[in-house]
Amino acid sequence: MGQTITQKILARHCGKKEVVPGEFIWAKVDFTLGNDITAPIAIDEFEKSGFTKVFDRHRIALIPDHFTPAKDIKSAQQVKRLKDFASRHKITHYYEVGRMGIEHALLPQMGLVKTGDLVIGADSHTCTYGALGAFSSGVGSTDLAVSWMTGHAWLRVPESMKFVFNGKLPKWVSGKDFILNVIGDIGVEGAAYRAMEFYGPAIGKLSMDDRFAMCNMAIEAGGKNGIIAPDETTLDYVQQAASGRKYSAAQIKAWRALQSDPDASYAAVRTYDVSSWEPVVACPHLPSNIKPVGKVGRVKVDQVVIGSCTNGRISDLRISAKILKGRKVASGVRLVVIPATQEIYLQAMKEGLLEIFVKAGGVVSTPTCGPCLGGHMGILAEGEACLATTNRNFMGRMGAKGSYVYLANPAVAAASAITGYITHPNEVVSR
Amino acid sequence: MGQTITQKILARHCGKKEVVPGEFIWAKVDFTLGNDITAPIAIDEFEKSGFTKVFDRHRIALIPDHFTPAKDIKSAQQVKRLKDFASRHKITHYYEVGRMGIEHALLPQMGLVKTGDLVIGADSHTCTYGALGAFSSGVGSTDLAVSWMTGHAWLRVPESMKFVFNGKLPKWVSGKDFILNVIGDIGVEGAAYRAMEFYGPAIGKLSMDDRFAMCNMAIEAGGKNGIIAPDETTLDYVQQAASGRKYSAAQIKAWRALQSDPDASYAAVRTYDVSSWEPVVACPHLPSNIKPVGKVGRVKVDQVVIGSCTNGRISDLRISAKILKGRKVASGVRLVVIPATQEIYLQAMKEGLLEIFVKAGGVVSTPTCGPCLGGHMGILAEGEACLATTNRNFMGRMGAKGSYVYLANPAVAAASAITGYITHPNEVVSR
Repeated sequence: MGQTITQKILARHCGKKEVVPGEFIWAKVDFTLGNDITAPIAIDEFEKSGFTKVFDRHRIALIPDHFTPAKDIKSAQQVKRLKDFASRHKITHYYEVGRMGIEHALLPQMGLVKTGDLVIGADSHTCTYGALGAFSSGVGSTDLAVSWMTGHAWLRVPESMKFVFNGKLPKWVSGKDFILNVIGDIGVEGAAYRAMEFYGPAIGKLSMDDRFAMCNMAIEAGGKNGIIAPDETTLDYVQQAASGRKYSAAQIKAWRALQSDPDASYAAVRTYDVSSWEPVVACPHLPSNIKPVGKVGRVKVDQVVIGSCTNGRISDLRISAKILKGRKVASGVRLVVIPATQEIYLQAMKEGLLEIFVKAGGVVSTPTCGPCLGGHMGILAEGEACLATTNRNFMGRMGAKGSYVYLANPAVAAASAITGYITHPNEVVSR
Repeated sequence: MGQTITQKILARHCGKKEVVPGEFIWAKVDFTLGNDITAPIAIDEFEKSGFTKVFDRHRIALIPDHFTPAKDIKSAQQVKRLKDFASRHKITHYYEVGRMGIEHALLPQMGLVKTGDLVIGADSHTCTYGALGAFSSGVGSTDLAVSWMTGHAWLRVPESMKFVFNGKLPKWVSGKDFILNVIGDIGVEGAAYRAMEFYGPAIGKLSMDDRFAMCNMAIEAGGKNGIIAPDETTLDYVQQAASGRKYSAAQIKAWRALQSDPDASYAAVRTYDVSSWEPVVACPHLPSNIKPVGKVGRVKVDQVVIGSCTNGRISDLRISAKILKGRKVASGVRLVVIPATQEIYLQAMKEGLLEIFVKAGGVVSTPTCGPCLGGHMGILAEGEACLATTNRNFMGRMGAKGSYVYLANPAVAAASAITGYITHPNEVVSR
């Protein structure tokens, strides 16, 4: 029987030739991730278990990035919990606040996740790494703890859905718009516990940053994972992110071959022509509630956030800066720009992007998840509206219950910061 | 009877020729200040009063800088309160988050406070502006509200204390060390409700940034205000900060003449020879608990903070960067650097200082009071120790009750970030 990429990766990690959807497997994990919210619970479970050693101290990332630099005593205690655990178990990939950045931008950037890997993380957006042609999925803290004990995870093999993107990419349309359109099409439970395979010539034209943004939001349609078959863009990225490591020609060839079989079976196939798309906005209070930016109407915003594990990468900052350059944030609007990692921060500084943001009247924050989950660094008051490049706009997600979050790509965000209402980038650029 | 500078300024603001210590006066205020913590209470009082108009919308600053970008819903609501009030009363100097920075660095930088002015602010460190030869003092929120109604404030004329600094400034010794030595000498109530006049040849050699740091901490000895008579350094600063405004020769001459009379009377005079000083550290839990940095012993730190209204100015960042350049923050130590205003942030970026901080492994934050008052952006967990360039080290000030704050100048802070324990800058630089 033909296998999808997802099935192939799962099969290889449980020593089988094939797996079938619905099957439960005990899979070897290549890498695991916890953060300052989820890892403390995993640490509790690990310590209760009687295990005294982690399975592999080099295959665990502990990243304080959600409420950091610590926003209050509670978050400080949580970070301390990570730090103490990391020190006790000599965890290689514990990253002190200030050293690195947001987990889902960091792991690929550091080459800690590669094509074909199986990665679990106690964070729902762990699905991001599917952009590398890896299987990665968010799990609960107890599953994370079990992986620290055993190096394995229980998984139910998901059915796959195929999303085919044809056509030529219009100006201002990005990976974020691809995934918002999918979520708008199938709904927030439209891919519940399924592998979402993104495919087609329009995907081939997307940068890795755009692909990360797409796979990152697979969970917003309920997906178990999002995945894009490796192509030359992927393989270039993986090799560049290797920080000096050299992969063998055989390894690269094997990665290149990791494609779904032509006769693989899918629970559903959806096909889109992107040529006629314009940027979309997900209106409150669901990521599926999308409208083309031109049809949102005149929605005033109090805050604009550019950042997060979805859209805080260098190309996101570049397009935002291009629009903000020489312009000013509208009176009464707060602009918060959050580069996803310190490497991105330094690169953006070098290119003059941070200067553009500050001169426009924006805040440039150190990397943090911050406002995306209502953590800190730009929380909304009652009645306030925010346009954000983040991934969720549930009621109260970014602050008060009576606040409003609209999701869009960075170009729409930058344009909206300038006018003070949700705005098509063309409207600003043509001025 | 001879008058001190403080008396002269107060007399001029209540239409008298002279005032005497202990006298109550109803003084005209030149400028008033409130922030996201204190102004909401003042707004409540103002709105209860029946007044419908503020005395002068150009003489009120409303600056959200303490818990901003909003760290939670409560702080978001407080900022919204400021914003709505500012909009209703068309307050000129309301500054949106991201636009400007920390109040006490901002007001002088923008030329909103000048030599000879009388300024009140609902923040205890309002005494900072004494460095300009102004009378400025922290007041409660109700006093701030009354000033909005009337343009006046009730004040009791303070007695003055004179602090005379002689000798040559040793390397690494800064204004911060001057004031810590004073507080160490007289104690945290040693100048209770008194004007602290800083005087002498060693003061003349200090930069404005150092003078701001000194006057900023007058309140830590209980002072009603700190003040330094204007000299050419002061007058150059005031003219440069005027952002295009031109002051008349007569005005400048009048400012230059604002000196204490030779026969002015002082409740006490203390004289110091700074030549033999080395940088000092105020140990937990009082700013008066000082020791020379070389005598602190090996105190491990978990966090280092460089910033605040005391020491977040450009010269503070320059000396920190000089020490951190090409070096790395010690493993396990968080370094948080917070430029005090966006102007300082941009200047530091231009000079390559921010790059040095990030490359060393530090967080660069957008301007905020943040950790200084245990607000956000680096709160301490139980048992953690922090060396900070801030102004207070009371028990629990920066987080958990069982955490420890040590105060020092930026050079000591940078050196300590590198070694991981409280360190004399010489120890790092000579390596």
